[in-house]
Amino acid sequence: MNIPQSSFPRVVIIGGGFGGISLAKKLSKKELQVVLLDRHNYHTFQPLLYQVSTGGLEPDSIAYPIRKVLQGYPNFYFRLAEVLNVDIEKNLVSTNIGDLKFDYLVVATGSETNFFGNESIEKNSMAMKTIPQSLNLRSLILENFEQALLTDDLHDRDALMNFVIVGGGPTGVELAGALAEIKKGILPKDYPDLDTRRAQINLVQGGDRLLPAMSEIASKKAEDFLEGLGVNVWKNIRVTGYDGNLVTTDRDVSFETATVVWAAGVKAASVKGLDATELCTFGHRLKVNPYHQVEGFEHIFAIGDVACMSTEKHPKGHPMMAQPAMQQGDNLGDNLVRMLEGKKLKAFEYHDKGSMATIGRNKAVADLKRFKFQGVFAWFVWMFVHLFFLIGFRNRVVVFINWVYNYIKFDREARLIIRPFKKQYQTSK
Amino acid sequence: MNIPQSSFPRVVIIGGGFGGISLAKKLSKKELQVVLLDRHNYHTFQPLLYQVSTGGLEPDSIAYPIRKVLQGYPNFYFRLAEVLNVDIEKNLVSTNIGDLKFDYLVVATGSETNFFGNESIEKNSMAMKTIPQSLNLRSLILENFEQALLTDDLHDRDALMNFVIVGGGPTGVELAGALAEIKKGILPKDYPDLDTRRAQINLVQGGDRLLPAMSEIASKKAEDFLEGLGVNVWKNIRVTGYDGNLVTTDRDVSFETATVVWAAGVKAASVKGLDATELCTFGHRLKVNPYHQVEGFEHIFAIGDVACMSTEKHPKGHPMMAQPAMQQGDNLGDNLVRMLEGKKLKAFEYHDKGSMATIGRNKAVADLKRFKFQGVFAWFVWMFVHLFFLIGFRNRVVVFINWVYNYIKFDREARLIIRPFKKQYQTSK
Repeated sequence: MNIPQSSFPRVVIIGGGFGGISLAKKLSKKELQVVLLDRHNYHTFQPLLYQVSTGGLEPDSIAYPIRKVLQGYPNFYFRLAEVLNVDIEKNLVSTNIGDLKFDYLVVATGSETNFFGNESIEKNSMAMKTIPQSLNLRSLILENFEQALLTDDLHDRDALMNFVIVGGGPTGVELAGALAEIKKGILPKDYPDLDTRRAQINLVQGGDRLLPAMSEIASKKAEDFLEGLGVNVWKNIRVTGYDGNLVTTDRDVSFETATVVWAAGVKAASVKGLDATELCTFGHRLKVNPYHQVEGFEHIFAIGDVACMSTEKHPKGHPMMAQPAMQQGDNLGDNLVRMLEGKKLKAFEYHDKGSMATIGRNKAVADLKRFKFQGVFAWFVWMFVHLFFLIGFRNRVVVFINWVYNYIKFDREARLIIRPFKKQYQTSK
Repeated sequence: MNIPQSSFPRVVIIGGGFGGISLAKKLSKKELQVVLLDRHNYHTFQPLLYQVSTGGLEPDSIAYPIRKVLQGYPNFYFRLAEVLNVDIEKNLVSTNIGDLKFDYLVVATGSETNFFGNESIEKNSMAMKTIPQSLNLRSLILENFEQALLTDDLHDRDALMNFVIVGGGPTGVELAGALAEIKKGILPKDYPDLDTRRAQINLVQGGDRLLPAMSEIASKKAEDFLEGLGVNVWKNIRVTGYDGNLVTTDRDVSFETATVVWAAGVKAASVKGLDATELCTFGHRLKVNPYHQVEGFEHIFAIGDVACMSTEKHPKGHPMMAQPAMQQGDNLGDNLVRMLEGKKLKAFEYHDKGSMATIGRNKAVADLKRFKFQGVFAWFVWMFVHLFFLIGFRNRVVVFINWVYNYIKFDREARLIIRPFKKQYQTSK
């Protein structure tokens, strides 16, 4: 790869997510050459992907060009590349655009959807971890309603209007709430010739409560909010299969639907060469010590979703969310500078700032350090926090304007099938 | 197709562009059943496509859901469909989702890029008539710069950074100006390790002046503006071929480039069944009388780019632009109601409100009825007019915010490769 030689040690960061970006920012203007590799040329604000899928926001306003984040930093290089392998003997990263030697390597590849080996679910259901995936889901939802208009078979029409969302974490809860609002506010006006009241939104959770990472009261309230919006919440049910028509479960319940969104699991996005089983632990995550060093290495680090730092409070690693990733990026940045200066490294301490989920207009749940609250105020806090963490002034303004507009008008105007998603529903006959 | 029978006569409109939408609006609440067919579920504001290609605007803010435009109109049906054939004997439209009888048919299919039969140019160059095409161009431009970083061959690197825009009409002029501003304001910061001053923007015009539909002074000023921005303007040169590497012309000039944008011609988007040569005239347009009736029919109409109404001032038909299409849609709407009421039809009269083109910040040219002016004021008028004609309040606000931001910050933040465009440049060796 075409990166100039420098007298500074070279840090290669794989991944421009929350962890990679906060690390790169910390390393700006330090005596290090920083190379950031990502398969996209933009950073994705994943917490708002569900709003892209449901037409509330443009994809471009939750993405930000990585080159722009790091504009003007000396010794900084970005390369649009897919990492194929890490050679831990030769300190070499291989990519689709060539090889690159490193002095330090930081794996910040995040996570990907985990279908737990179920190929039929993987083939037929939709994931929502990237912008293209979210746009595919947006297209599919709209295409299904257009197709529902064309059939006289009530059975097929219902299947085209039904949704099954698998997984009761924040993604599943927020998506279910957004779809319920669309069902109520938009579908009857857009499709006056369809009986859209028949559209069912089913949220299926394997465990015995929604938002299991949050407090009991948040789970309870989220479920109340969703049921108030007309979502069918199913608990203690595991989805076992989906063939494109029928969702089967481990209980006496099944669903006929053309749209299944799989939000029931993530796993670390592992990198070849660093995926030996002894390095990995729960959910394929790389075992790291409190200094983010991958077990057995001094100069290879992992941060964010891909890293598992086992602590007393989090024996299976920190939550796979933006906050720990950003804090780990920060701490690793400081540590790399300390390493160069021969100083003692600082062990990572996670400051849990709490978590939140929004269900719909005026409806959110928040567990902060000192307070747990739900409803309108939580919803305002949720919006404020998300606007604050969004990268880029223009993105913040555009997202804010969209939210104000959608709030006042009960609308979501980005319901556009810009790229049709080809997975057409085949009727069951 | 699944459209209920009604006691009102059925008007089928093919195409939701400027003409089709303005007609459908006119027919709301009239004693007619209106069915609008389009292969997209959104209306595209084509005059701003070049800003999508150059990262200045999100695609979603220049598109508007057709169902939303016509929400709440009784007797109105939209279907997402590709029209395959019109049977003029049986008064039947065939589409990919079934057949539909009509009492009145309005062809408002607009125009498409005309490559004049040159297959090699069609295969290797980029068109910019739809949102997906504009997004492909945006991806290609960014991918080429990422690829330019990877080669040590100066020759290839230059080709990856060069642009050839064929056609000196408004599209070509506006795109060339936008690219020149990106070259100046964004590329040096985003690609500090490339000598982006070497990037060349070539605008190739077959005739002897740019913007041939505008006044001489507008042409002259547009050329001055472009040259001031560093664009190479080539006149009296016709491009004869492009193999993916080399652009050949009918003169002793050729260009090596990975990016050719073809804006040198449009032709009517004809509909099978209505494309008999005797119906068509200049640029495949359907010959219509002053009442928009296709020659030989009382109940089949054509409006907008696809129609050729020969008048004294416009013997080859009205300009293929938004204004005539909207005015024709309006007039046809009135005439259809007159027809129902047994009144005399009104011949169409085109009110030319003038034309404009923008070249860059503070730089535009305008030919209005009474005034011709260029520069800052024209630029403000251009922005105001485009905001005014954009459909949707949210779109207007978001576009306005983006323009203000881009103006103040000399920036364009939507430089995201959301869907890679696969046409990779193959080096000439």
